Amino acid sequence: MSLTISIDAMGGDFGTSVTLPASLACLSANPDLSLIMVGDQVILNELLAQALVDFQDRLVIQHASERVEMDDSPTKALKNKKDSSMRVAINLVRDGRADACVSAGNTGALMATARFVLKMIPGVDRPAIISTLPSIYGHTHVLDLGANVDCTAEHLFQFAIMGSELVKAVEGLENPTVGLLNIGEEDVKGNEQVKAAAQLLKESNLNYIGYVEGNSLNAGHIKVDLIVADGFVGNVALKSIEGAAKMFSSALKEAFGKNSLTKLIALLAYPVLKSFKQRLDPRLYNGASFLGLRGLVIKSHGGADALAFETAIHLAEVEVRKDVIRKISEKIETTLAKREQP
Amino acid sequence: MSLTISIDAMGGDFGTSVTLPASLACLSANPDLSLIMVGDQVILNELLAQALVDFQDRLVIQHASERVEMDDSPTKALKNKKDSSMRVAINLVRDGRADACVSAGNTGALMATARFVLKMIPGVDRPAIISTLPSIYGHTHVLDLGANVDCTAEHLFQFAIMGSELVKAVEGLENPTVGLLNIGEEDVKGNEQVKAAAQLLKESNLNYIGYVEGNSLNAGHIKVDLIVADGFVGNVALKSIEGAAKMFSSALKEAFGKNSLTKLIALLAYPVLKSFKQRLDPRLYNGASFLGLRGLVIKSHGGADALAFETAIHLAEVEVRKDVIRKISEKIETTLAKREQP
Repeated sequence: MSLTISIDAMGGDFGTSVTLPASLACLSANPDLSLIMVGDQVILNELLAQALVDFQDRLVIQHASERVEMDDSPTKALKNKKDSSMRVAINLVRDGRADACVSAGNTGALMATARFVLKMIPGVDRPAIISTLPSIYGHTHVLDLGANVDCTAEHLFQFAIMGSELVKAVEGLENPTVGLLNIGEEDVKGNEQVKAAAQLLKESNLNYIGYVEGNSLNAGHIKVDLIVADGFVGNVALKSIEGAAKMFSSALKEAFGKNSLTKLIALLAYPVLKSFKQRLDPRLYNGASFLGLRGLVIKSHGGADALAFETAIHLAEVEVRKDVIRKISEKIETTLAKREQP
Repeated sequence: MSLTISIDAMGGDFGTSVTLPASLACLSANPDLSLIMVGDQVILNELLAQALVDFQDRLVIQHASERVEMDDSPTKALKNKKDSSMRVAINLVRDGRADACVSAGNTGALMATARFVLKMIPGVDRPAIISTLPSIYGHTHVLDLGANVDCTAEHLFQFAIMGSELVKAVEGLENPTVGLLNIGEEDVKGNEQVKAAAQLLKESNLNYIGYVEGNSLNAGHIKVDLIVADGFVGNVALKSIEGAAKMFSSALKEAFGKNSLTKLIALLAYPVLKSFKQRLDPRLYNGASFLGLRGLVIKSHGGADALAFETAIHLAEVEVRKDVIRKISEKIETTLAKREQP
């Protein structure tokens, strides 16, 4: 199945130095893939001169005269940068010229622009950000990771429906398990929104398994396919895990770098430490999807390197192939229809 | 300075098999310390027969006929177990017979009982749970870790005042830095409560440094002495870090346990891995303080082993010596007086 993805070539902390090599690697890996590189055409034409020959009509440049900076406010990006590489890349999805868009640009601006350009799926109140985290069972999908600071029970319920549909499609799971992030597993625990969301989930036909705690993101006592949280809690949890990872690798480095003997041991242990590092390499988990929109937008980490950005493009490929947006839209529609029945 | 601590000897997942050896180790380490062991006197008299001789009047048994189970609700503990080891240990603090109490019993029951028996410091609306987490800078104090699922800006502000006073006393810091946990560092980020709390903190004389993100708990770009969050967010962050730690050590074990060669390397690397493990040993961070009460209660992790429970008793010793409760009470009083001025 051939597919086309638009790339915000100028986005992220490192712009073209990351987006171009990652894009070319994806083109080499997948002969069915076409890419539209969006950005300054003078720069892109020069940097991609050889690639344009190599990949022929699978690689196209689309000019955009502006760039959304990492600290631009959503409003500024939306109102004053209508010809940004980010905006134009999203426009291509709206216009049906691309099946998905990938950007490492700033989250707020990307979400606001995507929402404005692509519009919401009818029936969905709020968009949400979903991504995967490594876990002792493989990995776990988590949403919302920061799009919504305040969520009602209904919002959380809609996140669960959308997330479950994505996990179903992407993982090929019949009936993914859904957990609600809380501060305890007992029914009495949590705030009002979470308790009310639990009630909605219990009454739904989702495979709801109950409350899960923060440790379930990486290492709970059972495998959970999807964990639902409001964007404030989800974002803090995600970043807490990032901080913990950094502290662990720093302490490991410190222990092995203490003196010449420990350094020698590190040399001997190198292959083991490398395989450990690879298992949890955050670059292999890069890429978050915006759910609730009528088009597919994948957000890469702003500081992603080429390998990480490649992962985000691969994620877009998978979600296009699995027709995630259509499946979510249909699921939302049938869920709503069912609720409207007497 | 001599001091007395009451120990809920029957509390926690492992009861006396953990609380007794930890208590005896503390008595050996500190000749100024006296302990009142609270629990079934028949059991305690038998298990402590030799210790009662060794430590003479520094070790006393106080009978309590009941035990709060780990899954007892706060209401059940409070209403139906008035002679529990937990309740009696807290009563000793109220009656001035102990300077602090340490329990590994269930958090909800312990908080409800402590609040009921000891009462709140006048002016404090809600109690909070504070503990320390390891960080690349040493460690960070964090509250609230789960006492309050919903917090107003005023609650968060009071947590900051109490926490700052504790950090000042315990760490000997003149003016500890205070960060507010949020999903970004920019002013526009966050929910209404956090934004309003930021305003209160800016206007206060606390050393408020602004918003911090989840990664700051373990490895932010600057050192933060105290991080303030509502109990839902703080609890999820804490447990997310616990899960990440578990995943990391499990992946490390897996990498070193793969085959006989990697196992040999593990043997060679043993001292390095051990020093790494010790640096982040969660048992050395065990013990959370309940702030806002008119007496000192330290909560140990329910699953604590003897070393971890010892850490919790040491924490109680430090906070008694540093007169934390009195300092917090005075600070709250002067802050309130200042606010009431025209």
